[in-house]
Amino acid sequence: MENFTFYAPTCFVFGREKEDEVSDYVRRFGGSKVLIHYGGGSCVKSGLLGRVEGALARDGIPYVKLGGVKPNPRSGLVYEGIELCKKENIDFILAVGGGSVIDSAKAIAAGTLYDGDFWDFYEGKPVTEALPIGTVLTIAAAGSEGSPDSVITKEDGKFKRGASGEAFRPRFSILNPQLTESLSPYQTAAGITDIIAHLYERYLTTTTEVEVTDRMIEGLLLTMIHEGPRVIEDPHNYDARANIMWAGTMAHNNCCGVGRAQDWNSHNIEHELSAQYDCAHGAGLAVTMPAVFRYVMDKDVNRFAQVAVRVWGCSMDLDHPEKTALEGIQCLQNFLCSIGMPKNLEELGANAKDIPEMARRCVFGDGRPGYIEGFVRLDERDVKNIYEDMC
Amino acid sequence: MENFTFYAPTCFVFGREKEDEVSDYVRRFGGSKVLIHYGGGSCVKSGLLGRVEGALARDGIPYVKLGGVKPNPRSGLVYEGIELCKKENIDFILAVGGGSVIDSAKAIAAGTLYDGDFWDFYEGKPVTEALPIGTVLTIAAAGSEGSPDSVITKEDGKFKRGASGEAFRPRFSILNPQLTESLSPYQTAAGITDIIAHLYERYLTTTTEVEVTDRMIEGLLLTMIHEGPRVIEDPHNYDARANIMWAGTMAHNNCCGVGRAQDWNSHNIEHELSAQYDCAHGAGLAVTMPAVFRYVMDKDVNRFAQVAVRVWGCSMDLDHPEKTALEGIQCLQNFLCSIGMPKNLEELGANAKDIPEMARRCVFGDGRPGYIEGFVRLDERDVKNIYEDMC
Repeated sequence: MENFTFYAPTCFVFGREKEDEVSDYVRRFGGSKVLIHYGGGSCVKSGLLGRVEGALARDGIPYVKLGGVKPNPRSGLVYEGIELCKKENIDFILAVGGGSVIDSAKAIAAGTLYDGDFWDFYEGKPVTEALPIGTVLTIAAAGSEGSPDSVITKEDGKFKRGASGEAFRPRFSILNPQLTESLSPYQTAAGITDIIAHLYERYLTTTTEVEVTDRMIEGLLLTMIHEGPRVIEDPHNYDARANIMWAGTMAHNNCCGVGRAQDWNSHNIEHELSAQYDCAHGAGLAVTMPAVFRYVMDKDVNRFAQVAVRVWGCSMDLDHPEKTALEGIQCLQNFLCSIGMPKNLEELGANAKDIPEMARRCVFGDGRPGYIEGFVRLDERDVKNIYEDMC
Repeated sequence: MENFTFYAPTCFVFGREKEDEVSDYVRRFGGSKVLIHYGGGSCVKSGLLGRVEGALARDGIPYVKLGGVKPNPRSGLVYEGIELCKKENIDFILAVGGGSVIDSAKAIAAGTLYDGDFWDFYEGKPVTEALPIGTVLTIAAAGSEGSPDSVITKEDGKFKRGASGEAFRPRFSILNPQLTESLSPYQTAAGITDIIAHLYERYLTTTTEVEVTDRMIEGLLLTMIHEGPRVIEDPHNYDARANIMWAGTMAHNNCCGVGRAQDWNSHNIEHELSAQYDCAHGAGLAVTMPAVFRYVMDKDVNRFAQVAVRVWGCSMDLDHPEKTALEGIQCLQNFLCSIGMPKNLEELGANAKDIPEMARRCVFGDGRPGYIEGFVRLDERDVKNIYEDMC
């Protein structure tokens, strides 16, 4: 196991109607003037935004609002948010929504305290300072409610890039599984896929002797496999939604990723898809993961066989461990299809003719060195082969 | 799943030689005059105490020392520590040791800011305020390095009682698995048993639909079963010690215990043993757990069968699930014996003639209502039967 520091001081407030307590937490964590950041229709239509505004107003906490965050959140709105926060002397950002809203809020939080272009952080500058953030989560997926990460798409060039820093950990996150009941089955399934991807990206490691985090990841994967189909079958199954929601947070706050190298190449390869086609990130991952895993599994067949046996219940073929490994990858793909996710580029709405350009951008775009580093280092040809396997 | 709040803002600094950075963290978390609290011989002999003192001195952080914490830490030293902290205007307590030292530090931290008798907190008064605490951990066991809990034995009457409160969460904990390599096999095994007990006490729940925490607990149990024997066989197996150390912290910081009722009757029943005979808490738990589990398993045979199948690898006997449940309990006891733990009161050094008095104290002592509440409510007769099953 490698040395690590794990500092995850987000206060998670979990359960029914917990959003009604939002102003207590804004106050506890030092907010005196708030930007409420949100997306579009659903949180307005459901009345959630109104309830949050009502809670702040009732407790005398002034706020301004900035809506309009889209899935795969864009840099344009971030610049707008930074301007607004500076002008209004905002000292706390409250994200009401899913990962896109939270990631956008994080970018605004860092940009407000920074004199340069906030995009610097998404090109590798460490995030050391940001306005404090709170969240009211509306979809179990990105894990951004407990993570130090944010992903933004730059409109100029359609680059989708991530930034990280402890200052990006929300001070509090309100997790009410009821709020996820209005999601469509497709959105729910895309969220489930994203959570599964966060677990696999950590599972694929070159670090040896990490049994504790292997086992925690496997436990969370088993949870997703059990609860995913239940919530697709009955969107109002509160307990299934609750189990998925906590699994999603634990999958990405990194308590199960410490002390081990991680992969993240499925995310890197997927980001080109959602940047180009604006598809749901989870749907893109459903297509990407099996192709990446088949491509890289020779690097450590036993690791893929291990997850096949322990999580997917495959029998170990000791004479041909690669068969067990492949069987596990197929089980993953079958599972994702069974909850309604696409299985190839066509179903995703992507076009095979764009593959060469996506492969190039993935490894060279926005200052990258000609490869992406992870469980296996992948160059342009590798990424092209992987995209072609998705056809 | 039940509603919950999970706020665990301890900064964990994990890995080789990390204790050398201790003064950075004391400073980061606001310490300007420190009480170093420790036990006895081993942390002096190993040079750890000297290194910690050297680090503080080098960085100009003044400190005073209070050693002498014993396993099953006593109220007498707590009173002494409170006096010392008040006299010396201490604003940070650094616990260098295991769970006993950390628990004693927590009691001093609360007592220093309280005008009454600190024992009030151990009779149920909520802990709302305490001096900040940091730890340098020397044994993977109690989980106190990341928990809001503390257990102290009152010398007058030998009552062993717990107190809890968010203010008891350490600000930072330095976890260097190397520091645990000098432990005897017996101490190591007792620590492993304590960790396993923290997992079982959470697993035994009356809350339904808690798959995510069930699975996390199972993953951590599987880790302990894999790594325990490896570290007993080779005390210098760093990676096995590292996996156990992180599992011990995750087992008790409550990320796998949220949203569910918990048991803690094995702990309550064991506390009488270690209070009377001053045995290792883990050794007491090794004898207590199987007896408690056999006694209460009828309450939910399927839960015991589930852990038997998922963790111990038993085959499910669908016609006689109670056989599977019992088989799992036997596997647990066999495992604990295999790492050197006692299996009955005699091996523990306890005396069967004390059973009636221990049962009485367990349910009536120090203001208790005549029963202990957990997975099953147990009265004096129940507890007596359980102790007798340990003979």
